[in-house]
Amino acid sequence: MAGVPAIAEAHFRAEAYPWEPRSRPDGFLNLGTAENRLLGDLHAAYRPPPLTDAGTRYAPLYGTALLRERIARHLGGGVCPEDLVVVAGATAALDVIATALCDPGDGIVVPTPYYGAFDTDLAGRSGARLLPAPPDPADGHGLSPAAVRRVLDAARRDGTPVRAVALASPGNPTGTVYPPATLRELARTAAAYDVDLIADEIYAGSVFGPGHFVGLREFAGPRVHTVWGFAKDFALPGLKAGVLHTPDPAVRDAARALAYFAPLSTHTQAVLADLLADPGTVAAFLAENRRRLRASYQAATALLDAHGIPYVPAQAGCSVWADLGAWLPGPDPGFDAERELWRAILDRTRVSILPGEAFHAPRPGWFRVCHTLDAAMVGEALTRLGRFLGTRQKEGLRGAGLHTAGSARPLV
Amino acid sequence: MAGVPAIAEAHFRAEAYPWEPRSRPDGFLNLGTAENRLLGDLHAAYRPPPLTDAGTRYAPLYGTALLRERIARHLGGGVCPEDLVVVAGATAALDVIATALCDPGDGIVVPTPYYGAFDTDLAGRSGARLLPAPPDPADGHGLSPAAVRRVLDAARRDGTPVRAVALASPGNPTGTVYPPATLRELARTAAAYDVDLIADEIYAGSVFGPGHFVGLREFAGPRVHTVWGFAKDFALPGLKAGVLHTPDPAVRDAARALAYFAPLSTHTQAVLADLLADPGTVAAFLAENRRRLRASYQAATALLDAHGIPYVPAQAGCSVWADLGAWLPGPDPGFDAERELWRAILDRTRVSILPGEAFHAPRPGWFRVCHTLDAAMVGEALTRLGRFLGTRQKEGLRGAGLHTAGSARPLV
Repeated sequence: MAGVPAIAEAHFRAEAYPWEPRSRPDGFLNLGTAENRLLGDLHAAYRPPPLTDAGTRYAPLYGTALLRERIARHLGGGVCPEDLVVVAGATAALDVIATALCDPGDGIVVPTPYYGAFDTDLAGRSGARLLPAPPDPADGHGLSPAAVRRVLDAARRDGTPVRAVALASPGNPTGTVYPPATLRELARTAAAYDVDLIADEIYAGSVFGPGHFVGLREFAGPRVHTVWGFAKDFALPGLKAGVLHTPDPAVRDAARALAYFAPLSTHTQAVLADLLADPGTVAAFLAENRRRLRASYQAATALLDAHGIPYVPAQAGCSVWADLGAWLPGPDPGFDAERELWRAILDRTRVSILPGEAFHAPRPGWFRVCHTLDAAMVGEALTRLGRFLGTRQKEGLRGAGLHTAGSARPLV
Repeated sequence: MAGVPAIAEAHFRAEAYPWEPRSRPDGFLNLGTAENRLLGDLHAAYRPPPLTDAGTRYAPLYGTALLRERIARHLGGGVCPEDLVVVAGATAALDVIATALCDPGDGIVVPTPYYGAFDTDLAGRSGARLLPAPPDPADGHGLSPAAVRRVLDAARRDGTPVRAVALASPGNPTGTVYPPATLRELARTAAAYDVDLIADEIYAGSVFGPGHFVGLREFAGPRVHTVWGFAKDFALPGLKAGVLHTPDPAVRDAARALAYFAPLSTHTQAVLADLLADPGTVAAFLAENRRRLRASYQAATALLDAHGIPYVPAQAGCSVWADLGAWLPGPDPGFDAERELWRAILDRTRVSILPGEAFHAPRPGWFRVCHTLDAAMVGEALTRLGRFLGTRQKEGLRGAGLHTAGSARPLV
């Protein structure tokens, strides 16, 4: 169930026969893929550059100088273009950094819940082993450096070599913007245990909540390696433009060598450099994206509230981490019960959402619900989901401590 | 010296400070990179499609259905779109097929001379081992199935597991179009030894000589895996559009899984699907390319002839395989002498050409000379090369059997 094959299969099955109110009312409503489709009108107005020499000829396989310069300016914070490695997607960037850092068998600690594709992206080719770090109930729903330390300690006891800690920041699936103090503590933990940090900051520009995003590199030295891309903030996932920032010269050299196997089309690089050409235009574009993300989030959570479905309040990203634990059958349901609920939702409502098992959720019942899609489709899907859950026996309030309709303030 | 680092380093050093007759007469004349720059005017007239949904959204990571359909039609010969895996460049396609076929340590036999980047492309990430198969003098300059059999026999004796035979067809660096009978014999050899075939046919549409190109898949069953791309035939190397054709379902599934790590930008896929939309336009474009390749080859070889530099007559591709063995010092010069000549040419003439050692040439003295570049630059470079060689003592006619000016007919 867990991992990319399930995500990919659900995505392509749903995409192959999508719901359409008139012509295909029995189609799938795909809320399973974290795709930002709110900016299509802005993209359609843009005219890509022609196939000039710069866009068609051989260029450095870790990114053209022009694109790296503009990405560095866009990322800000003193990022140097020489420390950037542009590759064919954030997946490739994660593969590159894991392969550059790890020998096969080396461990990478990952706080849970985490982006399920990390299993493939970080470990599939590199041979690294992911060591999930589940939070204690006392840790709350946020990022827990204490959980990371528990796994690092256990690895020391077992003699498992650990090379890095990896996380998505802002969080995926939770959409949480982590407080600077927590990130600082995580950086100190990594330094104390002599491991590197891999920060997947692909949602860095997709923060719509009140929280202020700070990159992990603010708190760590040359041992934090950051992944970013154009999939989320620019809503261009198909362009497969992944960026690795690494200030460590030896890691950068290894990453450049690995980029040889996954280079990005120079024409797509020319398109992206063109999109980043004017900082004012970029700022306006990103502000409009944040405005649309916020509206989309508010519409989706209003529907969850209306149906009494609890969720972790999000401040970033394309999804809501919803707790359907109360609708799992029996007194102590396992992940088999979650799988059963997932299947029932898909079969009965044709709504595709991803079960928490795919994100190594600490307990069964969580689902990631993506909402940055056609508003009518999201509305139909969440209404169907709410009605379907209304027909099922609620087994008790497992969502205590989460935001539910009527609570004065999100508690997490 | 050998291998990609040298090729890449020479390329970028030369590209960073290119010769220009007026403003930069001390610049480099880069005849080292097999880049077809004869079609820039045709590219510049083309307008790429806008950033539509199809060009920006998630799509199957082994290539969109539309692009695979059009590539299948373009390749012809009953190629099925389902058997195509589109990835981020021919390098990635070679990495994918080697990784899909080989466990680390497995051997891949490669007839020499061969495209030097095979060392990295086929073995760098896969962990496969390349086993060069040098021809006997009796085998001539063409492809030698007998040489392949000698290496396969030796590997059997040593207990080295061999998984495949790999070759570029048409040949690189030689530009040779192999006779169907030779390809058939190679396919029979592979079958007899129970190994797969990897055919790098990236120059399939760049045949300008009288020979008729036939894909290796005409002679072999599901165990021939073909790599093609848009770098040479369409002169779009920066687009990093590589294609793997494999009729073996298990290999195809593995290749699709590996494509996940090196996908091609969907916008670039939209551009390429658009370029392939009308078969008549494609045929005219390719015919014009062949006409320009032939003219470029004839101009370059006329200069080689004028300076008495022998070469293997080419029928395809961007380069000529020239024999400067007569200009190596001493009675029995080694590859150190070749390196010295290479360095002397680069330093004294600023002409960058690649030494045969980078292609695992059977003996020292060969150089690959690319000519599909600005005609004035190629003319200047070959004139400088000819004059420089004229100042050096010729140590005897090592080029016997090759085409030299005055011989009635190329012998090879």
